[in-house]
Amino acid sequence: MKEGIVVLGHGSRAAVDEANQFLVEVTEALKALYPESLLESAWMNPRTPRQKLPEAVARLVSQGVKRIIVLPVFLTAGLHLKEDIPEILAELSQKYPGISFTLARPIGFDPRLIDILADRLAEVRG
Amino acid sequence: MKEGIVVLGHGSRAAVDEANQFLVEVTEALKALYPESLLESAWMNPRTPRQKLPEAVARLVSQGVKRIIVLPVFLTAGLHLKEDIPEILAELSQKYPGISFTLARPIGFDPRLIDILADRLAEVRG
Repeated sequence: MKEGIVVLGHGSRAAVDEANQFLVEVTEALKALYPESLLESAWMNPRTPRQKLPEAVARLVSQGVKRIIVLPVFLTAGLHLKEDIPEILAELSQKYPGISFTLARPIGFDPRLIDILADRLAEVRG
Repeated sequence: MKEGIVVLGHGSRAAVDEANQFLVEVTEALKALYPESLLESAWMNPRTPRQKLPEAVARLVSQGVKRIIVLPVFLTAGLHLKEDIPEILAELSQKYPGISFTLARPIGFDPRLIDILADRLAEVRG
């Protein structure tokens, strides 16, 4: 049974699409790790022209996926993760009663994140 | 010459302070790595009651710091990093002409971030 993964990021309305491109890169890297899963990117920000969570889910469902994991590319559990995303997932569960939805944890505190931040500091210290 | 580091995150207005507490944990971990620097956390979200960038800088300046690195705990260069933070730093540079300010890069795409996301997926797959 094929598994679907929605790689869900914040996105930006910024004219330069760098903040949106980041999520594309993350999704590509995860596709390489999970070649047997179907992956879609989705953006929360209503002001980005990129695909949103319901569209990503519709695409996965149309490809026969029965189990969908939503992977939030968010540092912390702010309001999107506490309220907006669960609300959208509740609606999608009603719309697609045969599909199971699971929301993963956000990135959160992690020693690997501290390593990356230490590198960012080192870059400007020279 | 003492160096100051402002660990600058987004913050959340969420009633549960988890998204703000995350930045405290990140700052504590960085303090352990840089015991000779002075570190302050700061939050961008105007709706969080936590310390903002100008207050963090004022505290560092009052302790004799001459060089301040602002380390953004943001995944991408969205509008905060492209516009809001540079504007605040320009104002602070005028207010404190003897202090040098340097803005580090955001977290960005990194294989270590992909590792963490793979762990978050593994948690819900069981």
